[in-house]
Amino acid sequence: MATSGKLQAPLYVKVNPADNVAIIVNPNGLPAGSVFPCGLTLIEHIPQGHKVALTDLAHHQPVIRYGEAIGYALRPIKKGSWIDESLIELPPPPNLDELPIATKTPKSLPALNGYSFDGYRNPDGSVGTKNILGISTSVQCIAGVLDYAVKQIKETILPKYPYVDDVAALNHNYGCGVAINAPEAIIPIRTLQNLANHPSFGGAVMAIGLGCEKFLPERLLKDANPSNIISLQDYHGFGDMVEAIVQMAEARLIQLNQRRRTTCPVSELVVGLQCGGSDAFSGVTANPAVGYAADLLVQAGATVLFSEVTEVRDAVHLLTPRVINQNVGHTLIREMKWYDQYLANGEVDRSANPTPGNKKGGLANVVEKSLGSIAKSGSSAIVGVLSPGEKATQKGLIYAATPASDFVCGTLQLASGMHLQVFTTGRGTPYGLAVAPVIKVSSRSSLAEQWHDLIDVDAGRIATGEASIEEVGWEIFRLIIDVASGRKQTWSDHWGIYNSLCLFNPAPVT
Amino acid sequence: MATSGKLQAPLYVKVNPADNVAIIVNPNGLPAGSVFPCGLTLIEHIPQGHKVALTDLAHHQPVIRYGEAIGYALRPIKKGSWIDESLIELPPPPNLDELPIATKTPKSLPALNGYSFDGYRNPDGSVGTKNILGISTSVQCIAGVLDYAVKQIKETILPKYPYVDDVAALNHNYGCGVAINAPEAIIPIRTLQNLANHPSFGGAVMAIGLGCEKFLPERLLKDANPSNIISLQDYHGFGDMVEAIVQMAEARLIQLNQRRRTTCPVSELVVGLQCGGSDAFSGVTANPAVGYAADLLVQAGATVLFSEVTEVRDAVHLLTPRVINQNVGHTLIREMKWYDQYLANGEVDRSANPTPGNKKGGLANVVEKSLGSIAKSGSSAIVGVLSPGEKATQKGLIYAATPASDFVCGTLQLASGMHLQVFTTGRGTPYGLAVAPVIKVSSRSSLAEQWHDLIDVDAGRIATGEASIEEVGWEIFRLIIDVASGRKQTWSDHWGIYNSLCLFNPAPVT
Ligand SMILES: [Ca+2]
Ligand SMILES: [Ca+2]
Ligand SMILES: [Ca+2]
Ligand SMILES: [Ca+2]
Ligand SMILES: [Ca+2]
Repeated sequence: MATSGKLQAPLYVKVNPADNVAIIVNPNGLPAGSVFPCGLTLIEHIPQGHKVALTDLAHHQPVIRYGEAIGYALRPIKKGSWIDESLIELPPPPNLDELPIATKTPKSLPALNGYSFDGYRNPDGSVGTKNILGISTSVQCIAGVLDYAVKQIKETILPKYPYVDDVAALNHNYGCGVAINAPEAIIPIRTLQNLANHPSFGGAVMAIGLGCEKFLPERLLKDANPSNIISLQDYHGFGDMVEAIVQMAEARLIQLNQRRRTTCPVSELVVGLQCGGSDAFSGVTANPAVGYAADLLVQAGATVLFSEVTEVRDAVHLLTPRVINQNVGHTLIREMKWYDQYLANGEVDRSANPTPGNKKGGLANVVEKSLGSIAKSGSSAIVGVLSPGEKATQKGLIYAATPASDFVCGTLQLASGMHLQVFTTGRGTPYGLAVAPVIKVSSRSSLAEQWHDLIDVDAGRIATGEASIEEVGWEIFRLIIDVASGRKQTWSDHWGIYNSLCLFNPAPVT
Repeated sequence: MATSGKLQAPLYVKVNPADNVAIIVNPNGLPAGSVFPCGLTLIEHIPQGHKVALTDLAHHQPVIRYGEAIGYALRPIKKGSWIDESLIELPPPPNLDELPIATKTPKSLPALNGYSFDGYRNPDGSVGTKNILGISTSVQCIAGVLDYAVKQIKETILPKYPYVDDVAALNHNYGCGVAINAPEAIIPIRTLQNLANHPSFGGAVMAIGLGCEKFLPERLLKDANPSNIISLQDYHGFGDMVEAIVQMAEARLIQLNQRRRTTCPVSELVVGLQCGGSDAFSGVTANPAVGYAADLLVQAGATVLFSEVTEVRDAVHLLTPRVINQNVGHTLIREMKWYDQYLANGEVDRSANPTPGNKKGGLANVVEKSLGSIAKSGSSAIVGVLSPGEKATQKGLIYAATPASDFVCGTLQLASGMHLQVFTTGRGTPYGLAVAPVIKVSSRSSLAEQWHDLIDVDAGRIATGEASIEEVGWEIFRLIIDVASGRKQTWSDHWGIYNSLCLFNPAPVT
C-alpha cells in the first residue's frame, strides 16, 4: 500500500527535459524556503500538485510541460514561484485544418502472447466478462414499473440462479418527449441498440416498452421477436405487468444460469479508459501507467477505447500523427469539428473545462489537462475512430469520441462493447457501472489511503519513486485479466456502487 | 366504475357546433354500415377515437374540430369516411408576431369558499402535502453511494420515524461534464435549487456532493450551512461516507417526525396539470374535466400550472387573448419563440409531435392534440408565465413553460413548487413522482377498466354520457383535496411507482 505520508524531503516531478515547470509531490505542499536536491529554492508556498517555475520566465514566454506549451506567462515569473492558473494565458486550440495526419504512425508493438482470461463465450461468438440479465427499455415512462419488478426478481427469483451475477434494468431518459427524427437522434438510438445487445448479457435479451412511445422496443433488439418484448399498454393493470416481466425474466435467468466461464484469449477483451476528477498528477502517474497497460493490451491483441473529446481536443495535434492512415485521421478530425460546432451552438467554449476540482488539483487549463489525459492512450497506432455510441469492431487502439462527463462517457463506451473500464482519478470519484467492472486508479497515494475501500490501484507510488510506470502498468494489466475473469472484484462491484446510464442526446427534447 | 364495455349503439362525440368531424366512442370502433341516430352512415370501418366526416369535404376544405381548423383535406372526402392523419394537411403554426393579447381576458370567476385540506405547515409559512426527507445532490457521480445509503436508511432507520412518509434521493444527470456557464445552464441550475427547497421536504434540507464538481452543493440550498452538506471527497472511504449520510439523514428524520397535518386553505395548493399518451378522447373527456377542476381550484384561490410548450404552441392564439395583461402575453410569446428557436437549432419541426401512440389513438396532428391539450387549462385568466424550472409565486392559473416529455415536465413542475399533479392519459402510462402524488385520469373507460389498479379517475364516462364534465370535474377537485390531505392514496403512491427526475438542460454536455 501507499506510503506517501512518510515523504518528507522536497520532491517535484518534471515530465520532459524541455519543461520549465514541475509539480510538487509532497502531500501538504511545500513552504517558502524549501530547497530541492537540484538547488531550486521555493520563494513562496506551493500546494501539492501545483506547478513551480524551474527558471525565470519572461512575460509572454511559453510555460512548458510534457514538452509542450500549456500557455504563456501573463507577467514575468521568478524561478521558485508558484505558477497558478491566473498566471497562464490559454493558447489557441490546434487548428483542425492544419493537422499532420499519420506522419508518425507508431510501428506495431511486438506481440504479447500467453495471456488469457476466463470469460463467457456467447452463442454469437462474442465474449462477456459478467453474466447479467440486462432488461432493456424503450422509454423512461416504464421505469417505475420495471424497478418494482426488478426488486421482486432480485429478492425472490435471482437467488435460485447462482451462476447469474445480477439483473440490470437499463433505464434512461430517452424514448418519448424527444425528437427521434432529428439528425443527431442517431446517437442516443444507436447507443440504446448497442447497450441492449451488450456481450455480458449472453444473448438473453428482453425489452420493456409502453406502447405509445416514439422509440419502440422493437427497435432495440437484433431479434425483435414478440416473445422478447413486453409493452405495458397490452397488459391488464399493474399486477399483470409485473407478473409478465418476472416471468420473462425467469425464462432468461434459467438460460443464463447455464453459462460458464471458459478460457478466452485477451484479444477478445474491449477495455475502456476514462479519467474523472483529474489533478496534476494524473498525467504523470495514473494516466501513463494506464497507457502502459493499454500498450500491453494492444500487444495482446485486445481492443482499447480512449475517449473524452473535450479533454483531447487541445492535444489533438499529438494524436493525428499517430493514426494508421489518412482515413482514420480525417474521421478523428471530423469528430473534433462536430464537437467544436456542438459547443459553439450552445455558446460554450473550452474554458468550461477544467473543473474547479481539477484546478484545485493543480491543472491550470484544458491544455495541461489534455496533455495529461492522452497519456492514457499509450504509444500504439490509433487504428480506428468511433462516433458516439458506435460499436467497436476492430482490435487495437481506438478513439471512441464521447463527452468527458464520466457517466456519459461510461454509457457510450458500454455501447461500444466495453467489457471493463479503467478509470483514473486524482480528486476521487466513487463512480461505477452495473454492466462492466470499473477499476479505479488513483493518481496520488494520499487518495488511495483516504479512499482505502474505493481505489483499486495506487499509481501515486510513481511520483514518490516507490514504483515505476512499467510496474504499475503491469499491475493494472494483470488486474484487468483477474477482474475480467471474475477472480478479483473491484471495490465498486464489492459495494454495488453503480451510476445510472446517461445517454448523450444532442437533439432537442420536445 | 366504467361501463363502456356495455356500449353497443353507434356513438360519436362532436365538440363544437361548427365541427365537420366527430370521433367514434365505441370501444372496438364501428364497421362500415353503422348508422347513427342522426342518420349518418359509415362507409368504412373507423377505429375508436378516430374521426368520421360529418359532411362531404372538398379538396383543401378545412377539417374543423373544437371549432378550429385542425388542417385541410388533402383530397375530396365523403361523408361517413374515416379521416385519418394521411388525409389532413398540417396548417401553418400561429404567427407569434401577430397574436391578439389580452383581448378576451376572462372575468374573475366567483370565489369558492369553504374548502380546505390537511397539509404540513412549514416554518417558512409554505405548506407541503407529504412529509419527505429529500436528499439533494449536486452531481450524478455520487448517486451510487447515495443509493446505497438511502437503502440502508429505508431499511433500518426510517421505520423508527412513523410520521415520515419517505426518503427521496434527488439524483439527476447534472453537475459535472456540463457547461454550467452556458447561457441556458440557468434552467437546470434553478430547477435543482428549487427542487432542493420543495415544500414537502419541510425545510429539513441536506445536500450531497463530490467536491470537485462544477456545480457545488453549496449552490443548491438557501441555507448553505456546512452542517447541511456532505462532500464525499472529505471522507475517509466508502464506509465513512455512508455513515455520514445516514447520520445527517437521521437528524432530519427526527425533526420531520414532529411534523403533523393541520387544516390549510386550498389557496395554499400548487397543482400541476399534464397529459401523456393522449388520444382523441383526451380533449373531450379527461382534459375538459381537469379544466373544470382547474377552474374550481382557481376559484378557491389555489395555484394551477399548465405546461408543455410543444402541445400548446399550435393553440397559442387561443391562449394569448386570455392573459391578464400585455406583460404576461409578451412573456408567453417569448417562451414560445425561445422554444421555436431551440427546436430549429436541433433541425426539428413540430411534426415530431404527436407520437405514434397519439396517432393510433386518433390524433391526426399537433394542432388537434394542442386544441385538446389546452382544455386542461379551464376558462380562467392566465395570470402568469414561468420559464422552465422557475418557482411559482402567484395564485391563479399560470402557464409554466416546459417540454411535453412527461418526466421532464413533471420535474420542472416540481421545481415550480407543485404539491400534486393531475395527469390525463388516453393510451395509458404508469408514470409517478416520489415527491408529489400524481392523480391519473383516463380519457377512455376501456383504459380505466384495463388498468384498474393504475388509473385513479375514469373520465371516459363523459363520452358515453354516464357523467358530465362538471361531475367528473368536481370528483377530481374533491380527490385533489383528499390526496393532498393524505386521506386517499393515488395508485402510483400505493405501488411506489416513481419515475426518475429528468432535468431540462438545453446547454451542451462537455
Ligand atoms: Ca476526464
Ligand atoms: Ca467527475
Ligand atoms: Ca471523464
Ligand atoms: Ca402531453
Ligand atoms: Ca406530457
